[in-house]
Amino acid sequence: MRVPYEQMQAEFKRILLKRGFTDQKADDCATIFASNSLDGVYTHGLNRFPVFVKYIEENLIDKNAEPELGNAMGALERWEGHLGPGMLNARFCMNRATELAAEYGIGCVAIRNTNHWMRGGTYGWQAAEAGFIGICFTNTIANLPPWGGIDPRLGNNPLIIAVPKANGPVVLDMAVSQYSYGKLQLYQLNKQMLPLHGGYDKLGNLTMDPAAIIESQRSLPIGFWKGSGLSLALDLLVTILSQGRSTAKITESGAETGISQVFIAIKPEEELTAQLIEQIIAYTKTSRPVEEGTEVTYPGENTLKTRLRNKAEGIPVEEGIWQKVLEL
Amino acid sequence: MRVPYEQMQAEFKRILLKRGFTDQKADDCATIFASNSLDGVYTHGLNRFPVFVKYIEENLIDKNAEPELGNAMGALERWEGHLGPGMLNARFCMNRATELAAEYGIGCVAIRNTNHWMRGGTYGWQAAEAGFIGICFTNTIANLPPWGGIDPRLGNNPLIIAVPKANGPVVLDMAVSQYSYGKLQLYQLNKQMLPLHGGYDKLGNLTMDPAAIIESQRSLPIGFWKGSGLSLALDLLVTILSQGRSTAKITESGAETGISQVFIAIKPEEELTAQLIEQIIAYTKTSRPVEEGTEVTYPGENTLKTRLRNKAEGIPVEEGIWQKVLEL
Repeated sequence: MRVPYEQMQAEFKRILLKRGFTDQKADDCATIFASNSLDGVYTHGLNRFPVFVKYIEENLIDKNAEPELGNAMGALERWEGHLGPGMLNARFCMNRATELAAEYGIGCVAIRNTNHWMRGGTYGWQAAEAGFIGICFTNTIANLPPWGGIDPRLGNNPLIIAVPKANGPVVLDMAVSQYSYGKLQLYQLNKQMLPLHGGYDKLGNLTMDPAAIIESQRSLPIGFWKGSGLSLALDLLVTILSQGRSTAKITESGAETGISQVFIAIKPEEELTAQLIEQIIAYTKTSRPVEEGTEVTYPGENTLKTRLRNKAEGIPVEEGIWQKVLEL
Repeated sequence: MRVPYEQMQAEFKRILLKRGFTDQKADDCATIFASNSLDGVYTHGLNRFPVFVKYIEENLIDKNAEPELGNAMGALERWEGHLGPGMLNARFCMNRATELAAEYGIGCVAIRNTNHWMRGGTYGWQAAEAGFIGICFTNTIANLPPWGGIDPRLGNNPLIIAVPKANGPVVLDMAVSQYSYGKLQLYQLNKQMLPLHGGYDKLGNLTMDPAAIIESQRSLPIGFWKGSGLSLALDLLVTILSQGRSTAKITESGAETGISQVFIAIKPEEELTAQLIEQIIAYTKTSRPVEEGTEVTYPGENTLKTRLRNKAEGIPVEEGIWQKVLEL
């Protein structure tokens, strides 16, 4: 079943208005959720929307909260998120980072006590479409063991790097875990093995069995010790710069709220930039494909294809979830 | 065989003075090379020094070149490296980034036409010891296939993130390839298998056999498609911001010179920072160790231990390489 983007956005907006959102905030949140599904990131679009509504109803997210300036030092600012909707806080911060970058060449905005931003790529696209390089990262609840350890003490903290480009930006949107928990569950549900090692089983052996990884809680960071170090470094950066809650404190609290994020925007020079980007993409694509008939793609390339297709044909939805949302 | 740090530094300095370096530049280069070995990064210390001297003698590196300001926009600057010694250019740029960060909160310096910085961690330690968060990355010659491709079109572009900390900073220094070419060669030489998959063989199967990976040229990026995307993103950033040479152009030229780098420094607030860092490190270390009697460490922790040991006992050297250097 496919649902037109406009219809999905309108339903989300209706539901949020019913929960007391202002017209503007309901519209903005609905647009971000529907756009995530439009771009094929269903896990953080329609499929996640009911959880967002639940968090609003339980007051884990304050629908009326506005970000407030905590400290400013030229091109570096710290904001207080007041537990507002994570997507709105994140959009605000990336916009503020681009304003600082327009003034100083580079801008960095950290925010504490914010909430899940859903899809990090949203804010990468935002920066790139405004003509800026965008870099952002967040911490999460602990769900990944550090290298050499058994118990989860790190988040699968995503890192986003976006570069503006004619005909669609390059947007890297990667968590530091090889497979997200949602992906493991999906493979388990379909009784399938992962295509690659995704973690360790209870005996400490690398495995492609999603059920064994869910049982052991020993999901694999990308590059083993490297992804583990990267996750720790990202948690340090967001926590220090926002003076906010670390993965440790989020985990202690028991719920993934009040998290910490950083948004960086950089203003590229105009003259040669477009040409340099095309040169790099073109060179990368000269690598002969592993599978005949395919080609090497850059991060974000397939997103744009999915967006155009879903725009034309409607967004594919799981009918059960869509029905549930219609009843909210 | 072990050599005292002071003796190694003095030998390096003597050799560079003999090649016409100024006293200051000879001393600075010698200190960086000797410090890399002191910290246990022998591949980019003593073992690499003869290659550096060769590049100087072949005029691939201009020993007298000074970085020159190309463009300044507040907290963002672009510099021209004039093919000077990569370590001196990099040290200059990270220092300049900290000056900008002292003024604007964050500073970003890009440099083009520079040379191999040897060990990226050097500039992370530099920033952290000056009290700043340091982030830097570089491109390299192509030595890694993009995800879905067979031929190398990406660099194993290292990413460094350093955070100042009492009793030694956290310094993540990671290339995006799972194993460096040097590591593959070392395992091959010792007729050992890698502990984990390091790439594909000629038939496209994941393998732990270093010889098969060297033959296929299909080394593995960390996290498969993720490391591939990260490498591309880092090349885009350094190339755009420096308006310099991409991995494509470096590879076309046939020699890894005239590369592009970015250095970012951020000034953390003083009040809570130290406490937040200790909180994160302490929490991470509560993960029960996989191997009894060990403990989870943070990036940079073992480096500091190695430094103290090598300072006390001398730096372990391969006698053949040390003899070769003595004769330079």
